[in-house]
Amino acid sequence: MSVTAPLGFRAAGIAAGIKAGGSRDLALVVNDGPNRAAAGVFTANRVKAAPVLWSQQVLRGGRLRAVVLNSGGANACTGPEGFQDTHATAEKVAEVIEDSAGEIAVCSTGLIGERLPMDDLLPGVEVAAAQLSRDGGLAAADAIRTTDTVSKISFKRGEGYMVGGMAKGAGMLAPGLATMLSVITTDADLTAEELDAVLRRATAQTFERLDTDGCMSTNDTVLLMSSGASGIKPDIAEFEQKVTEVCADLARQLLVDAEGASKAIAIEVVGAASEDDAVKVGRSVARSNLLKCAIHGEDPNWGRVLAAVGTTDAEFEPDRLNVAINGIWICRAGAVGDDRDKVDMRPRDVTITVDLSAGPHTATVHTTDLTADYVHENSAYSS
Amino acid sequence: MSVTAPLGFRAAGIAAGIKAGGSRDLALVVNDGPNRAAAGVFTANRVKAAPVLWSQQVLRGGRLRAVVLNSGGANACTGPEGFQDTHATAEKVAEVIEDSAGEIAVCSTGLIGERLPMDDLLPGVEVAAAQLSRDGGLAAADAIRTTDTVSKISFKRGEGYMVGGMAKGAGMLAPGLATMLSVITTDADLTAEELDAVLRRATAQTFERLDTDGCMSTNDTVLLMSSGASGIKPDIAEFEQKVTEVCADLARQLLVDAEGASKAIAIEVVGAASEDDAVKVGRSVARSNLLKCAIHGEDPNWGRVLAAVGTTDAEFEPDRLNVAINGIWICRAGAVGDDRDKVDMRPRDVTITVDLSAGPHTATVHTTDLTADYVHENSAYSS
Repeated sequence: MSVTAPLGFRAAGIAAGIKAGGSRDLALVVNDGPNRAAAGVFTANRVKAAPVLWSQQVLRGGRLRAVVLNSGGANACTGPEGFQDTHATAEKVAEVIEDSAGEIAVCSTGLIGERLPMDDLLPGVEVAAAQLSRDGGLAAADAIRTTDTVSKISFKRGEGYMVGGMAKGAGMLAPGLATMLSVITTDADLTAEELDAVLRRATAQTFERLDTDGCMSTNDTVLLMSSGASGIKPDIAEFEQKVTEVCADLARQLLVDAEGASKAIAIEVVGAASEDDAVKVGRSVARSNLLKCAIHGEDPNWGRVLAAVGTTDAEFEPDRLNVAINGIWICRAGAVGDDRDKVDMRPRDVTITVDLSAGPHTATVHTTDLTADYVHENSAYSS
Repeated sequence: MSVTAPLGFRAAGIAAGIKAGGSRDLALVVNDGPNRAAAGVFTANRVKAAPVLWSQQVLRGGRLRAVVLNSGGANACTGPEGFQDTHATAEKVAEVIEDSAGEIAVCSTGLIGERLPMDDLLPGVEVAAAQLSRDGGLAAADAIRTTDTVSKISFKRGEGYMVGGMAKGAGMLAPGLATMLSVITTDADLTAEELDAVLRRATAQTFERLDTDGCMSTNDTVLLMSSGASGIKPDIAEFEQKVTEVCADLARQLLVDAEGASKAIAIEVVGAASEDDAVKVGRSVARSNLLKCAIHGEDPNWGRVLAAVGTTDAEFEPDRLNVAINGIWICRAGAVGDDRDKVDMRPRDVTITVDLSAGPHTATVHTTDLTADYVHENSAYSS
């Protein structure tokens, strides 16, 4: 199902020879309309890959006919030549589907600092176009995998319409800066402005709360495309909920596929003076290498949680902080609480609850533990 | 030599029984004057250990007669009772050296969230006071070790005066949030205001540019004490240089003792629009887990350097960034530069030079690689 669950979309995923080994590495998703409104959110990294620069420019028009995605190379830090490669890829798609390159987005993922093998990629576009079909969603999701062990797909049904999606990214634990790419489609009928507002809110609650090692990719891209083929103009609140559910489902799939990780950690911040404060504290805890090592060792080390909270400017008093791990409040009022031996650290899922005692707001940030496998995988990659 | 290299100081380091195993765990440094001006810099973590809260309060007076330091327990997140323990420790020192507790600083290092064994610590203060001597600097430096494999000491001679120091901290790779404690002494004659200004500038250039895993301790403390026993009022610029040299020497010792690390990485940022920008970029690169894994694998992965630079708000244009690793400019103008095979990654010392092409300012931040040993040590600690 994936991106072809909604009406009006065809997709394909093929092996163009970009990756050594012959596995799928090129995906194409085409919107047959009647609508082609679209929106995108991109990495906040100031060092942006050529396809990000290109797609940002395309999305200014608020319309997308198609998106072409490749694994096997990020096309980042490749200079003006790399940008020309992206441009040529969009032009090639335009040629074979007889449309305008100005409404074709490009996404790439893989190693930074290497040019793409255009002699393989451009012919691959023709092959992909020839294979476009209403059943192509799974092949497309397969073709964007890098170190992902499984394809990530999702779909939800709204009142008379569908929302579908695919994503790649093996947590941040995958090498190559763990680019996260996602394409979400719908046959509901919306304007570019509506899609943009919904996508920003949905990703802020989902993908942006996944923080496995604090490293930010040069290539992260999430696209939302509307074909309008259902003829339904949805209730916006319901539509936002469906898109958020698809994003949350995909984000969860990224988290559990994080290679090298043995724990999925939810940092649930409660009692915050604002949602911003809650996210800030959650992110700080999620980025503590020392805490992530402790969780790996099944050690409910609440001192490392407090130390991470203390590095933020969120509203709190140190002597009013409470911390629970897997439901046991082992830190109360900034000091020792319940018996730490009561905490069962064995399950793969670990929930750390931080109560700031400063207000009614909450947020949850998701991360993984830090393991020797993470080090191994990320030290043995491009050498 | 250490803290007793300058005239006017006596020190001792003894085994009080705070640590299991009988090694030294309590140090005392006493300033016999005639001056007792002093200054301190403390962790910016808002969750501060009891001894930090106490010593900050003491230092407001700008005078220190003595400092008592213990390993074997951080006395952090221990509530009002923990603060009373610190207070009682200062009172005990005051009693045995017949002075005021209001001029006695306290430092602690070890596990967070556990009360100190006061029944061992307080009698230990008496033993330490009885052993105070002009030769006690080395024993004191030994007594503040936690996972440090060696004592860290330094001293420099100025025009008619000395600056001496000791420190503990095994990089951030040591468990327990890698508290960094340091006491620096001088027999030059300075006011508290002069010491404060010098210490802030010296630590900003040295200890604060050591960033091995981005985690900030609840207990970090650096104290500077002046006895005035040499009778020399030093040239301030020269004095600042000597203090900076002692701090840099100690910081380097912390870096090379970083357990679990196999590389010492200097991130040298040049061409920055301001020193702040240079530090910000250096710190961001130093905190990239992916880069630190790559260096561990002897992979000159400049893409991960650029990705880390791109997360900052420093002044730069992505297509004007240059990166050298060990002197080879493998990234030029934001894209591939010289042949990466020319980079010799075998030495323990690795220098990463980032040229922002945005101005004349520079700064160097020091870090270590990320290794499976780091994970092992920090996951197996308090469990």
